[in-house]
Amino acid sequence: MVTAENKQVVLERYIEGAPKETDMAMKMGKIELKAPKGSGGILVKNLYLSCDPYMRGRMRDFHGSYIPPFVLSQAIEGFGVAKVLDSDNPDFKPGDFISGLTGWEEYSLIRSTWQLRKIQPDHSIPLSYHLGLLGMPGFTAYAGFYEICSPKNGEYVFVSAASGAVGQLVGQLAKLHGCYVVGSAGSSQKVDLLKNKLGFDEAFNYKEETDLDAALKRYFPEGIDIYFDNVGGAILDAALLNMRIHGRIAVCGMVSLHSISDTKGIHNLYCVVPKRIRMQGFLQSDYLQKFPQFLEHVTENFKHGKIVYIEDMNEGLETAPAAFVGLFSGRNIGKQVICVAKD
Amino acid sequence: MVTAENKQVVLERYIEGAPKETDMAMKMGKIELKAPKGSGGILVKNLYLSCDPYMRGRMRDFHGSYIPPFVLSQAIEGFGVAKVLDSDNPDFKPGDFISGLTGWEEYSLIRSTWQLRKIQPDHSIPLSYHLGLLGMPGFTAYAGFYEICSPKNGEYVFVSAASGAVGQLVGQLAKLHGCYVVGSAGSSQKVDLLKNKLGFDEAFNYKEETDLDAALKRYFPEGIDIYFDNVGGAILDAALLNMRIHGRIAVCGMVSLHSISDTKGIHNLYCVVPKRIRMQGFLQSDYLQKFPQFLEHVTENFKHGKIVYIEDMNEGLETAPAAFVGLFSGRNIGKQVICVAKD
Repeated sequence: MVTAENKQVVLERYIEGAPKETDMAMKMGKIELKAPKGSGGILVKNLYLSCDPYMRGRMRDFHGSYIPPFVLSQAIEGFGVAKVLDSDNPDFKPGDFISGLTGWEEYSLIRSTWQLRKIQPDHSIPLSYHLGLLGMPGFTAYAGFYEICSPKNGEYVFVSAASGAVGQLVGQLAKLHGCYVVGSAGSSQKVDLLKNKLGFDEAFNYKEETDLDAALKRYFPEGIDIYFDNVGGAILDAALLNMRIHGRIAVCGMVSLHSISDTKGIHNLYCVVPKRIRMQGFLQSDYLQKFPQFLEHVTENFKHGKIVYIEDMNEGLETAPAAFVGLFSGRNIGKQVICVAKD
Repeated sequence: MVTAENKQVVLERYIEGAPKETDMAMKMGKIELKAPKGSGGILVKNLYLSCDPYMRGRMRDFHGSYIPPFVLSQAIEGFGVAKVLDSDNPDFKPGDFISGLTGWEEYSLIRSTWQLRKIQPDHSIPLSYHLGLLGMPGFTAYAGFYEICSPKNGEYVFVSAASGAVGQLVGQLAKLHGCYVVGSAGSSQKVDLLKNKLGFDEAFNYKEETDLDAALKRYFPEGIDIYFDNVGGAILDAALLNMRIHGRIAVCGMVSLHSISDTKGIHNLYCVVPKRIRMQGFLQSDYLQKFPQFLEHVTENFKHGKIVYIEDMNEGLETAPAAFVGLFSGRNIGKQVICVAKD
């Protein structure tokens, strides 16, 4: 039986506000590179790991959410792409590539395999894209845009955190749908990418705007039909003032962090009445029956060069804590991924 | 040609925050009791006038809303029930009763008749009910509950301003639909009415609660499926914390006033993501195609004693300014109506 060293990133303590690097620690363990008989599990080598904002929720000692907290001192759980080394499950065989929930470690024994997805290797699609463009963030963009926003050709669409893992695909889907799309981001480099690589009609750096309401009026003189909200807080408040009648707001993500650091609150909710705004929170997991349709739509457009995707790839498991923490200050440019091993 | 004295309530000046009695004035005018030939209009004697919170919006010098401001020094426009004295329109004849937009005055010449509704007198239904139960507020309750809230049998429903013109019908429709219904109101007398006359399962006085979140947890240990929001502000913020997964919030009305006097803002919007809450503002006027269906449903239930309605009736046009201002401090008990003349 082969036993290997297994470097891990573990959660040291539960957090209250924003995560810090020191809330996590590197730990060296050992693992048998074997799926135990009768376990129904698979033993995988992790190749790429995903840093996603929702994971902050699992770092809190709070059991009332849709997903339980991480277990302290164990490898952090997250989406990853991995290669099967050994299998006690007839659906998987050594050499298969999978994506799904795995551990922040070099090797993982995955016992719960029902939500794993087998990846058919395709030289034209990087494996790591199954954590972003073709993974949970991409599907979040797809489900949020098509299932929540009820988009129509020619509508005015605003996307915040627009160069992020979700936002960049929302904007491109909206363009393919015939919408006019403006994105906001937190640096001039990101604004550049939005306009010159991701095909947004316009983009602006919200950190350079002293009056977000005025900025939105400048970019949307006719108002906003659809706001895809990845940030909450002051940008949401300004967007409410600029929505058109029967506008829709899809509330996607990192709102919770903002609500912790931002004590100002939302003041313009009254706009939802005269403007008949529909504002809707969603989780991609409620729409998984549409996943095959999503994969087909996005893969096809990607292969025809109609969709691109920007990744921020860090090398080495030990870079994961800093990369994860960086998400919340916008340090990443595009989808944050950690490369643990290339194959 | 008969000319009559015509007492009027006019708007003296545009307002910023809450309306005061002195923003309005009584004025004595004269009117010819005749619908001019070629006008297509009708000359009516106003019987009952409606005080509705939305009218505050028309007292502001703001032209960007869904309805224009009142004209200064002219009779305030609002919903009323009136009797036709003279008609230049083939659809109406002297002696007809109508409900629709008329003036806060004894007699009105109504030139725009297309939105008026003819009332078939029915001894079992007070004429004034066409301003409440069977008028705009009642239809607001109906459209909001059925078109926005997607109610299901057995769901937990919370209604704020629950004894008001809209809230009291929302609660009764929800009970008829098989829901569990709790209302909040601002006095023990109103709480009494909710529990003992209007058939709510429970009710509480929000002014006696130091912790609204705790109050809602007490009345909704399983959480809230539907919140019909007539007030915004702190109650909305507490409701967000207590919504169940896939909960719905219909945002109806007086929110705008709260947003002026309440500088605290809404802090719990982040709840919409993990709970997948749909929050939707609406105006009854978007659903007018359902009005006949509403009338039939509510009239039938009223005649069978399954729906009751509470009115706060003031006598005399000169009581209108104080009655209107009282809406915003909750002085009214039930639907606020002014009786100008009995017939």
